[in-house]
Amino acid sequence: MPSRVLNGIAASDGVAIAESYRLVDPDLSFKKVKITDVNAQATRLSAALVASKKDLAQIKEHAIQTMGEDEAAAFDAHLTILSDPEMIRQIVKQIRDQRVSAEEALTVVTDSYVKLFENMQDNLYMRERSTDIRDVTKRVLAHLLGVELPNPALIDHQVIVVAHDLTPSDTAQLDRHFVKGFITDVGGRTSHSAIMSRTLEIPAVVGTKRATELISDGQPLILDGLHGRAILQPTTEERQQYHDLATTYKTQKIEWQKLQNKPSLTKDGVHHILAANIGTPEDLAAVTENGAEGIGLFRSEFLYMNAQDWPTEDDQFAAYKKVVQGMPDKPVVVRTMDIGGDKGLPYLKLPKEMNPFMGYRAIRISLNRTDIFRTQLRALLRASHFGQLGIMFPMIATLAEFRSAKKIYQEERQALIDSGTPVGDPQLGIMVEVPAAAILADQFAKEVDFMSIGTNDLIGYSMAADRTNERVSYLYQPYNPAILRLIKHVIDACHHEGKLAAMCREMAGDQIAVPILVGMGLDEFSMSATSILKTRSLFHRLDSTRMATLADKAIHASTNDEVIQLVDDFVF
Amino acid sequence: MPSRVLNGIAASDGVAIAESYRLVDPDLSFKKVKITDVNAQATRLSAALVASKKDLAQIKEHAIQTMGEDEAAAFDAHLTILSDPEMIRQIVKQIRDQRVSAEEALTVVTDSYVKLFENMQDNLYMRERSTDIRDVTKRVLAHLLGVELPNPALIDHQVIVVAHDLTPSDTAQLDRHFVKGFITDVGGRTSHSAIMSRTLEIPAVVGTKRATELISDGQPLILDGLHGRAILQPTTEERQQYHDLATTYKTQKIEWQKLQNKPSLTKDGVHHILAANIGTPEDLAAVTENGAEGIGLFRSEFLYMNAQDWPTEDDQFAAYKKVVQGMPDKPVVVRTMDIGGDKGLPYLKLPKEMNPFMGYRAIRISLNRTDIFRTQLRALLRASHFGQLGIMFPMIATLAEFRSAKKIYQEERQALIDSGTPVGDPQLGIMVEVPAAAILADQFAKEVDFMSIGTNDLIGYSMAADRTNERVSYLYQPYNPAILRLIKHVIDACHHEGKLAAMCREMAGDQIAVPILVGMGLDEFSMSATSILKTRSLFHRLDSTRMATLADKAIHASTNDEVIQLVDDFVF
Repeated sequence: MPSRVLNGIAASDGVAIAESYRLVDPDLSFKKVKITDVNAQATRLSAALVASKKDLAQIKEHAIQTMGEDEAAAFDAHLTILSDPEMIRQIVKQIRDQRVSAEEALTVVTDSYVKLFENMQDNLYMRERSTDIRDVTKRVLAHLLGVELPNPALIDHQVIVVAHDLTPSDTAQLDRHFVKGFITDVGGRTSHSAIMSRTLEIPAVVGTKRATELISDGQPLILDGLHGRAILQPTTEERQQYHDLATTYKTQKIEWQKLQNKPSLTKDGVHHILAANIGTPEDLAAVTENGAEGIGLFRSEFLYMNAQDWPTEDDQFAAYKKVVQGMPDKPVVVRTMDIGGDKGLPYLKLPKEMNPFMGYRAIRISLNRTDIFRTQLRALLRASHFGQLGIMFPMIATLAEFRSAKKIYQEERQALIDSGTPVGDPQLGIMVEVPAAAILADQFAKEVDFMSIGTNDLIGYSMAADRTNERVSYLYQPYNPAILRLIKHVIDACHHEGKLAAMCREMAGDQIAVPILVGMGLDEFSMSATSILKTRSLFHRLDSTRMATLADKAIHASTNDEVIQLVDDFVF
Repeated sequence: MPSRVLNGIAASDGVAIAESYRLVDPDLSFKKVKITDVNAQATRLSAALVASKKDLAQIKEHAIQTMGEDEAAAFDAHLTILSDPEMIRQIVKQIRDQRVSAEEALTVVTDSYVKLFENMQDNLYMRERSTDIRDVTKRVLAHLLGVELPNPALIDHQVIVVAHDLTPSDTAQLDRHFVKGFITDVGGRTSHSAIMSRTLEIPAVVGTKRATELISDGQPLILDGLHGRAILQPTTEERQQYHDLATTYKTQKIEWQKLQNKPSLTKDGVHHILAANIGTPEDLAAVTENGAEGIGLFRSEFLYMNAQDWPTEDDQFAAYKKVVQGMPDKPVVVRTMDIGGDKGLPYLKLPKEMNPFMGYRAIRISLNRTDIFRTQLRALLRASHFGQLGIMFPMIATLAEFRSAKKIYQEERQALIDSGTPVGDPQLGIMVEVPAAAILADQFAKEVDFMSIGTNDLIGYSMAADRTNERVSYLYQPYNPAILRLIKHVIDACHHEGKLAAMCREMAGDQIAVPILVGMGLDEFSMSATSILKTRSLFHRLDSTRMATLADKAIHASTNDEVIQLVDDFVF
């Protein structure tokens, strides 16, 4: 294979042919030196400030056109900082008093502002200012050092974004009309960039290790998200070949689209529910377009994370009601607050934890802060009157926790009934993501109405590996027989008690995992809306009895690789 | 119960009656003020420096008497810092230039030194200096603020130490002749303070939540480590009552001592191996005194953690040889390097991890840094010629990892044989502490020579709870049926393949767990040497068949509490 081919993990389907766009910060380090000419440094500072203002004005102008006045207003804050006379005075004073370069003086002064603002724990506005100051400082520093910052907001032609990794704030800056694909050094199928690319329905290849090293800016590139591969400087033949592949893929997508209102049946006619995961009521359109038979996971965090304070019962009620009414005659499962771990809240002050993934999060917070939990349960109960709503508790580890949560739920339901408020009779379930809960599934199945397996965390804890940690991400093994055994135990336990067994994370739409899960008889597969039709199409090719044999072989295999080979032998 | 009684977790057996000694840092915060009289602040600084020097001289003198010249030399470094003319000059300059208080000037200047030294990544000596500066700063600040620091090195009478928590550096300062017990606000049976108290064979009560709040300095106190309780201001009757209890306990310990050379048999004559965990070759004396039948866990970390650089093959060989020769005709299991998680190494630079417990640690490092791993394996192989040595790999998650480790081991063994070096034929085992390995125990059992269950981590990962995190430590549930099922699966898998099943962490000596583990047929119990005789005595009271019934009921229970009740019904 020529060195022009870069292999990685296929994170989102599709093929793109475009120029590269490097979203990589340049080296902004500088040497500390004693300076003699104070005025020369002050002049350098002025020039860098002027150039930065010019950049920002241009970015703002572009943002008004592409995103509208409101969104563009964010750049006004940046411009204000650049013109703050007090800050500039302090930087010049620092140059004069300490005889340091403009770079050093700038960094010292802005750092002290950042620290000051960051310590204002109670003031969200001021803390956001510290992010603004950081951004602006970076820009001025780049001008001082004569290096160029990427300006993703200024992209005005079709590109494939090349990055070490993509953070949520990176993607927020991208003009989605022009970005045709992502390629990153790190990450896996469940990293932020991968999930974002599937939401945008653009191809992505992640975990290539060397993309930012090998791909320069503006280089012609083919991105093959179907096979997890990129080709640098493609030949005419290669362009033609991938153009054909892109056409075939588009045709296939059109075929899939025809399955929108078809039942989710295997070749031998066994039905499995195909449901969608959503984050906000706005995601409902894609759910309907892709023919979901329900919502297997409605994450309620957006209500908490996009707010300045705890959301009220009425605000929550409105959001839940909107979703259940948007899915008439179809089940909607809402997961109660899953904050903590890597998801913080500005108004919930938590002590720093050494291992946040194994810390105070989700139901552990709800059972401690019952005031917040009760508010959410009341909102859910009121919304349950308007449709088919289920409630799911995240991070349940012990039966004692489930019993406590259920008791609180029952108290709130009775109180609403006593006050004459109409309520439904929601199903109560748990998310199975803590290994202990999966191991004890037979006991849980007697007391819950349904279980939904959250594979991302379940795999992480079972393998004792943080999937967001590059050094151990090789241990994120969804097909490891140990994981498959846990899943099978949960499904069997549910069926023994006549309860529904679901799965609601990435693995439910994973084309290698689906045949095994069909073989195990999983009742509901809940996934990104954009994966539903592809999975429905895969169902049509699978025979349940044969998949049951595959599943049995898989749980008796010894490694992740052996299982991949088995699926290959049985399905493809 | 009167409010004078404080309940907590019984962490180490025994009864103590003595005065309290508060090992609690006073509040050292101060208000930032603009000062007018520079000289007054400089004079305050001088006085605080003189007072601090006097403290240190006294502490040093005392340390020479109790610990010897070598240990006391550490305080010379502190005295040198207090006399550093350059540092003092800078503090006075800070007072004069910035018009700040002596407290603020001291903090600003010493902070800058600490930062400077801490950034010297390559220089261990300088980084240790930064800890010294911190300690000295604290002392000077206390004198400036007129508050008193605890001086544990000066304790000269019998006391019970009262602390929020005890760190390794706290305990290093304590004069062990005078400390008769510990009582802490936080922690559990497996926290550092608990383990230390068992090693010292003094009573301890941890996790009382309110000890430092309720107990003042020099207050008469009864500490009951048998029931996890303390009594403040005891009456004459209470003193007599606990004096009697202490006598009874002492008599019991003498009875236990008689079991030193007795076999470890249950009432119906079934033998289980009682082995010891050790950290250094120096621990061998206690192992023999307590009649251990082998060493189930020799932690090799001390070789790495007490060094300035990677230990050489010969240094390691000498340590391993000493231990196997110290245990003639008895098995010694050495665990390969278990660094990472909460155990860092100054000379192994690792990136900061968000969740170190789920990160790059133990065998994951060894399989990546095979140079270090091969050195350790060669040292172990050479030592294996001199006794009955077994090698155990920590944190194994997948069979692929075990196979890789075994392959490297075989290569090194062959190379030593080819070079004519005498080697033994060590047993190769794994520590089962990752849930995935426990779940797949039947597959592992076909390939390993033995398995040893490491319950601390296994419980932590299975419950997705960091046991060192106070907010979720309630989820550290050793008797949760989910944990018991994993343990039983490992034992059954080993027996099916005729391999030895061991357990080598706190749970192996836990008096509630032991009856269940006997019922499951665990072959080897490895624990702190001081817990062995007590456990041998417990064995004598247990009937295997009845315990098998208990174990069966326990794995079919639904909660940790139910299991505790079952053990109570069956045993006590």
